[in-house]
Amino acid sequence: MTLPDLDSFLSPRSIAIVGASSNRSKIGAVPVRYLVEHGYDGQIYPINARAEEIEGRRAYASLKAVEAPIDLAIFAIPAASVDAALDDAIAAGVQNIVMFSAGFAEMGKDGEQAQAAFAAKANAAGIRVLGPNCLGFMNVARAVYATFSPVVGTGSNKPGHVGIVSQSGAFGAYAYAMARERGLGLSAWVTTGNESDIGVADCIAWMARDPATRVIMAYLEGCRDGRKLREALDLARAAGKPVVVVKVGRTELGAITAASHTAALAGDDAVFDVLFRQHGAYRARTIEEFFDVAHGLAVAGLPPNTQVGLLTVSGGVGVMMADEAADAGLDVNELPASAQAMIRARVPLAATHNPVDITGQVTAEPDLLEATARAMLGEAGHGSLLIFLAAFGATPAMQALQQQLARDLRRDFPGRLVVFSTLADAAQQRALEDAGCLSFTDPARAIRVMAAMRFFLRDRERAARQATSAQSPAAPAGAASAAVRHGPYSEADALDLLAASGLPAVPFHRAHSREDAIAGARALGFPVVMKVLSADITHKSDIGGVVLNIRQEKEAGAAYDRIMAAAGAAAPDARVDGVLVAPMVRGGVECILGARRDPALGVVVMLGSGGVNVELLGDVTFRLAPVDLDQARDMIDELKTARLLRGFRGAPLADAEALAQAIVRLSHFALAAGDTLESVELNPFVVLPQGQGALALDAVLISTQA
Amino acid sequence: MTLPDLDSFLSPRSIAIVGASSNRSKIGAVPVRYLVEHGYDGQIYPINARAEEIEGRRAYASLKAVEAPIDLAIFAIPAASVDAALDDAIAAGVQNIVMFSAGFAEMGKDGEQAQAAFAAKANAAGIRVLGPNCLGFMNVARAVYATFSPVVGTGSNKPGHVGIVSQSGAFGAYAYAMARERGLGLSAWVTTGNESDIGVADCIAWMARDPATRVIMAYLEGCRDGRKLREALDLARAAGKPVVVVKVGRTELGAITAASHTAALAGDDAVFDVLFRQHGAYRARTIEEFFDVAHGLAVAGLPPNTQVGLLTVSGGVGVMMADEAADAGLDVNELPASAQAMIRARVPLAATHNPVDITGQVTAEPDLLEATARAMLGEAGHGSLLIFLAAFGATPAMQALQQQLARDLRRDFPGRLVVFSTLADAAQQRALEDAGCLSFTDPARAIRVMAAMRFFLRDRERAARQATSAQSPAAPAGAASAAVRHGPYSEADALDLLAASGLPAVPFHRAHSREDAIAGARALGFPVVMKVLSADITHKSDIGGVVLNIRQEKEAGAAYDRIMAAAGAAAPDARVDGVLVAPMVRGGVECILGARRDPALGVVVMLGSGGVNVELLGDVTFRLAPVDLDQARDMIDELKTARLLRGFRGAPLADAEALAQAIVRLSHFALAAGDTLESVELNPFVVLPQGQGALALDAVLISTQA
Repeated sequence: MTLPDLDSFLSPRSIAIVGASSNRSKIGAVPVRYLVEHGYDGQIYPINARAEEIEGRRAYASLKAVEAPIDLAIFAIPAASVDAALDDAIAAGVQNIVMFSAGFAEMGKDGEQAQAAFAAKANAAGIRVLGPNCLGFMNVARAVYATFSPVVGTGSNKPGHVGIVSQSGAFGAYAYAMARERGLGLSAWVTTGNESDIGVADCIAWMARDPATRVIMAYLEGCRDGRKLREALDLARAAGKPVVVVKVGRTELGAITAASHTAALAGDDAVFDVLFRQHGAYRARTIEEFFDVAHGLAVAGLPPNTQVGLLTVSGGVGVMMADEAADAGLDVNELPASAQAMIRARVPLAATHNPVDITGQVTAEPDLLEATARAMLGEAGHGSLLIFLAAFGATPAMQALQQQLARDLRRDFPGRLVVFSTLADAAQQRALEDAGCLSFTDPARAIRVMAAMRFFLRDRERAARQATSAQSPAAPAGAASAAVRHGPYSEADALDLLAASGLPAVPFHRAHSREDAIAGARALGFPVVMKVLSADITHKSDIGGVVLNIRQEKEAGAAYDRIMAAAGAAAPDARVDGVLVAPMVRGGVECILGARRDPALGVVVMLGSGGVNVELLGDVTFRLAPVDLDQARDMIDELKTARLLRGFRGAPLADAEALAQAIVRLSHFALAAGDTLESVELNPFVVLPQGQGALALDAVLISTQA
Repeated sequence: MTLPDLDSFLSPRSIAIVGASSNRSKIGAVPVRYLVEHGYDGQIYPINARAEEIEGRRAYASLKAVEAPIDLAIFAIPAASVDAALDDAIAAGVQNIVMFSAGFAEMGKDGEQAQAAFAAKANAAGIRVLGPNCLGFMNVARAVYATFSPVVGTGSNKPGHVGIVSQSGAFGAYAYAMARERGLGLSAWVTTGNESDIGVADCIAWMARDPATRVIMAYLEGCRDGRKLREALDLARAAGKPVVVVKVGRTELGAITAASHTAALAGDDAVFDVLFRQHGAYRARTIEEFFDVAHGLAVAGLPPNTQVGLLTVSGGVGVMMADEAADAGLDVNELPASAQAMIRARVPLAATHNPVDITGQVTAEPDLLEATARAMLGEAGHGSLLIFLAAFGATPAMQALQQQLARDLRRDFPGRLVVFSTLADAAQQRALEDAGCLSFTDPARAIRVMAAMRFFLRDRERAARQATSAQSPAAPAGAASAAVRHGPYSEADALDLLAASGLPAVPFHRAHSREDAIAGARALGFPVVMKVLSADITHKSDIGGVVLNIRQEKEAGAAYDRIMAAAGAAAPDARVDGVLVAPMVRGGVECILGARRDPALGVVVMLGSGGVNVELLGDVTFRLAPVDLDQARDMIDELKTARLLRGFRGAPLADAEALAQAIVRLSHFALAAGDTLESVELNPFVVLPQGQGALALDAVLISTQA
């Protein structure tokens, strides 16, 4: 495990504030005041050479002057003063520093160097650093307020079970205020700023171990170390703590905007998307969704199954809920016949399949609500229940009834998710939440939360399946780790290397003369294809370097001559190693398989639909390596044109299992290849009819220069 | 114009309540009380044979006994009593009836018949009917409360400019409560229930003419008369009143749920989607979106242009806003260099392109906000401005500053849309709204509203273009209205009819003998295709009834024999009219063109991508006829595979204009064909390289039986 233990940082027993001040307009005044006001129970050491006392606490001229252990030093000082302060901190044996100071990497090259030098020096002294250019952090339960954010001054948040970590200070402060507005209690709140040392991944890992935190909210703009982020997310998953993330820069406009905002941070957004999905973190798209999902998880936890019951007093809104549920892919399963009969016996005009519509009849017989809810949670076994009550639910009598129902249903069906949809003021919402239930005016927001819960449940199932299955994440048998060398690879060299690594590739012959080409074609069996063999020529077709469907020896000889002439004319300086002769493969479904190394996030495996579909439809899907068989099958299912592999319009069923195995092997090949490999692409990769396997007809491998 | 004038209905000068009661638990008691309490200024006539007086108003034994004009009678009585009441109403010269009574079409066949009989009798007497099985209506400005919905009892809504019409009573009541919650003033509120006479379309048309209504919200579950709905939407558009709709049943699950809920209502959801788009109504997907958009329109109106400025104090949230804006297709145009320089002069680290990030610097210099906003609305000319202020915006000083800014910007840039995004309580929101500005905690919701505004602006541009262009919506030249006869059409008959109607079709020869087939092939020029000609055989290929690529006379004769033998064997009872011989057309891009009559909504024109793409990708788009050239071009652009027509991967540019013209002609052909035509499909319809036109290679036409 490469993730550090941050306990002494986030739960310090003593805090020194460098730049502490009695002048409340200074940022150094703020943390002292927050710590005192909120009753932090550790030692507080204001550091100020010209003050006796600040906020009633004795002030010290320097960190060294404290002469007692200092777990955490807050640097509320200008960038120009940090070097001297660091020397003082090292001398005083400080363990951790939070740096509010701006004027570092966000200012350009000089700032970047100063930041790196500071971090290196601190690191050498064994000191962990949060920031610079951050708003600091809070450990709400322990009243650790190592922040100068004014948001705390406008009202503090209650302790609770949600941890928030944000790269952005402004977003972090907004998130703090929104949590307060919603009555959502926090365990910890951290802004990481320039991340010279401690990053979002470290904080997620810490929260995964923090007993107070049950749900983790993370806001990212980028990430320099995907491996650490993946490990942190795995830790959270293993601890059973759902992680909800916002990662900005989904679109091209967003990415351009992000590039100008956070030049130092890297990572392809599509890969982030896959990273989160693969490691069980739910990616929210909007701030509202971010909070709805985290709030729902904090209040109600995950339901025991993915089955969703929809209960309505309005047929039309029942249809709307069904629409949203279908879009979200929820499991809206029917009620058993007996439960349906029970409901119809009381309300002849009720719809009873699911959604269940008990109609306006409920206004005359409010107990219909409980009877139906119990049938859905009980007989039907729905893990989640969404109850739409229209305006009727906002009457005082119905509000009381909902509160009672919330308590009774959570008592009798522990762990089930019960969501009410009607108008509810803040007090009513809190009352329902205290009972472990949720409330939304718009049922569509409830559906969105249910979809996120389904994501977490499915991810847990997948993780459990992986843990118990014999299938090992290690490289599969037959996948020898063929070493990737530096320098250019010809098509033949690439195919050889892939074949040696257990990937199916078309058999071929390297021919260095006309006669050799004819002999090779004869040996492989006509018809054949012939391609110029040169690591220096990438677009072989464009220069006339490829001849297809060669049916006899005479054609083979002519093709050889034509290719050599074309290559000589088009690329006189290229080193040509003759031609590659291979059987002409007909039929099958064409795909593209690839892998590339993302400098920030690791090895990314790609599967695309072949022919024009990748380009025309963007029909492509990704996973981070290693990819196991289950994931490979999922990738295949995710293709928009997946039906082409399933015997579309009378074509034979394709050997999808061979494709899945190739994906797994390619992922292990690329991982084992290490940093030397930049990218590899098998295109076309032809999937033959079932039982006949699959094979790469061409390969392009790019490795680093020596 | 087929839409009725509902003024005497919705603004009655006198209201009689049949079933009026002093017993407040009876629904007949409710409207009397509401009318009296809200100060309705017309005549109120409670009808009750056993009461002297109700709510202080003299009661009458019957409608006839009133002996004064009655604009509106409310039937708050059981279904069993309505016939007698209708007789009384006819005798009393009542003009309009609103029927709360349940027990009609929603109960099944018998109820449906009773409802139809009632409606017919009322209609014959010149009486308009709202309901049965509805919650009635309110004209809020005039204090007309012809409803028994308890929602009014929980707090009444303020008069305003939003009209709400809902087929569902429960949804209508919820919408009323939500509008109240938001402080959104209403002009009128109507629930249409079973729609025995007055439907949603009638109410939209009325609101289009109602001076108090500026924005129309409509909730539909289905529609029996698409023509009327289209006319009503056109009226609203002509009156400059945006219509926001919710139509439930988008998905398969939703449609199944809807079918069990509203069996009587019909219409294909995809066609509804097109209908709304074509007639300028914005279709909201969720209740929140429904209200956000209508609320935004009511408060701020439409901005003067589609250009959007994004202003943020948090770079990360700027990226999020850029993501959402890109997804929504907003026009996020850059600031002019001078404006960017002005901002950078004050904040060196600001991002200035758009989104504009003035950074945390604004906390030190709050006037940066106004200077930047003015540069964006002024120099950059942004029609809309979204300002994200994070937690900083929620401080008292910043709240006051936003209120002032809202007033100043709306005064100096009239009509511009200014939206603040920060935490704001109800009072702050109302204050900003009073100045004509909006406020959302989540900027994504603001972006969604801006996307809807863009929809309306683009629709207006389109409508204006159509109004001023020479292009007439009448049938184009060369499109003779060839009459469609009853009974089955062979492929040849269909192609003939389409060609006669100005649609490009492949030339062909009907051959009734082997020799004739050979001669025809010779005349048309080899290579040719040959297909069995029979209105009774639909799947010609499957039975061996098609031979492609016939290159010479000998092959032509053999093909003829083979086809006749195959047809005789596979379909011995089919009437075979010989074979169709046509030139073999090569190249071009294959499409599918079609038109069909939707019984509820009218003639629907379809364009799909050819080959496997329609089925594999669902690559298809629709319009209601008539379709003009602009719309036809839009349809082409909407195809997922539209790039195939634009010279994809080195293919020649296709003659898209010929395709567009064919779409226009097909729409007029299908319209002119009237009810006899059920559907027509041109498949494949081949679009040749630019300048070479396009043509139908096959056609299937289905008309009604005689």
